[in-house]
Amino acid sequence: MNSYFISFEGPDGSGKSTVLEQVVAQITPLLKTQYLVTREPGGSIIAEKIRQLILDPTNEKMGAKTEALLYAAARSQHMSETVIPALKAGKVIFSDRFVDSSLAYQGAGRDLGIDAVKQINNFATSGIEPNLTLFLDVKPEVGLARIERARAGQEDRLEQEKLAFHQKVYEGYLEINRKHPERIAIVDGDRPGNRVVEDCVNIIKKRIPKDLLKD
Amino acid sequence: MNSYFISFEGPDGSGKSTVLEQVVAQITPLLKTQYLVTREPGGSIIAEKIRQLILDPTNEKMGAKTEALLYAAARSQHMSETVIPALKAGKVIFSDRFVDSSLAYQGAGRDLGIDAVKQINNFATSGIEPNLTLFLDVKPEVGLARIERARAGQEDRLEQEKLAFHQKVYEGYLEINRKHPERIAIVDGDRPGNRVVEDCVNIIKKRIPKDLLKD
Repeated sequence: MNSYFISFEGPDGSGKSTVLEQVVAQITPLLKTQYLVTREPGGSIIAEKIRQLILDPTNEKMGAKTEALLYAAARSQHMSETVIPALKAGKVIFSDRFVDSSLAYQGAGRDLGIDAVKQINNFATSGIEPNLTLFLDVKPEVGLARIERARAGQEDRLEQEKLAFHQKVYEGYLEINRKHPERIAIVDGDRPGNRVVEDCVNIIKKRIPKDLLKD
Repeated sequence: MNSYFISFEGPDGSGKSTVLEQVVAQITPLLKTQYLVTREPGGSIIAEKIRQLILDPTNEKMGAKTEALLYAAARSQHMSETVIPALKAGKVIFSDRFVDSSLAYQGAGRDLGIDAVKQINNFATSGIEPNLTLFLDVKPEVGLARIERARAGQEDRLEQEKLAFHQKVYEGYLEINRKHPERIAIVDGDRPGNRVVEDCVNIIKKRIPKDLLKD
């Protein structure tokens, strides 16, 4: 059965989660098939427990490799319990973050190397990739300023990282984008939200297989 | 500085933890250096939190790959917080389980493949291996019968697995033992405890660098 897997990527403060919600609201009425909205890390009970461990600000001694392996563990569970069954059922999947986040944050941001982190994630996902990735392009200094306004001191462990870390994450994303131009669509995220959503909706409409849409 | 890293391996019910305790009691008075007794999964606060997730009997939907990645995550943290600092300080380390357990339980027992699990663990450990591994050889049916008597219904998630699983784990161990005869010493664990301990103590005395022992 045809299915379609869309991931949303971008630096912290890129507005990803809000954009995703509005894109889903506009796209799903057009679909002939069922859909699934999910997120990483998380998307299953066990994966959400792993998410809590990763993001808990009291775990400040967590090593970079531990962090990368925990994200991969959460992803593996998300795949087996949530994503793979949805793919098999021919659903359209909208995921807030996927493997590219690990490559950018742990591979580039934590200096573990994009290839080393990719290898671990291939084990976790059995090599399954999104059909389409929407990258919301927002410079790290802009994203961080947005987060500080929005969270007001309630940032999680990764959001608390300094600008130099987020700069490396951003450069990691740019490298991944260059390597996968066929999969990843870059959307300028530094504009009013409705414009960003409009671009995402148009890209999805153009790329999604026609037999998943209502006539 | 000279250090020495000893891991204890064996199927569930091999008596590993009790033997380790008595071996430590007999060996450490002979040491000139400091020592560390640790265990996996665990051996650091964050790693113990991961251990709880892995062994919690309510997480029965945990996938094999998730389990393997969580063990590797716990190990990575155990390495960076506990084992590597001890190695750098020239200590003698006694660890209840290490990488071989993952290869046997997840690689062989869960059918993920010893090589695939090894690759993930190389990332976690940066390739650091014990100098000596003591494998307590106890047939799975003997080990399981011991556990049932000892735990009386309080088995953790992995101990609850059926005999067929533990048989695959045991065969996995035998394969690893064949591949690393220089590192792994096989001790017949199906004998009175004091005899098993005696053998382990003699092997350590013979193998440990002489400059770590008192004159």
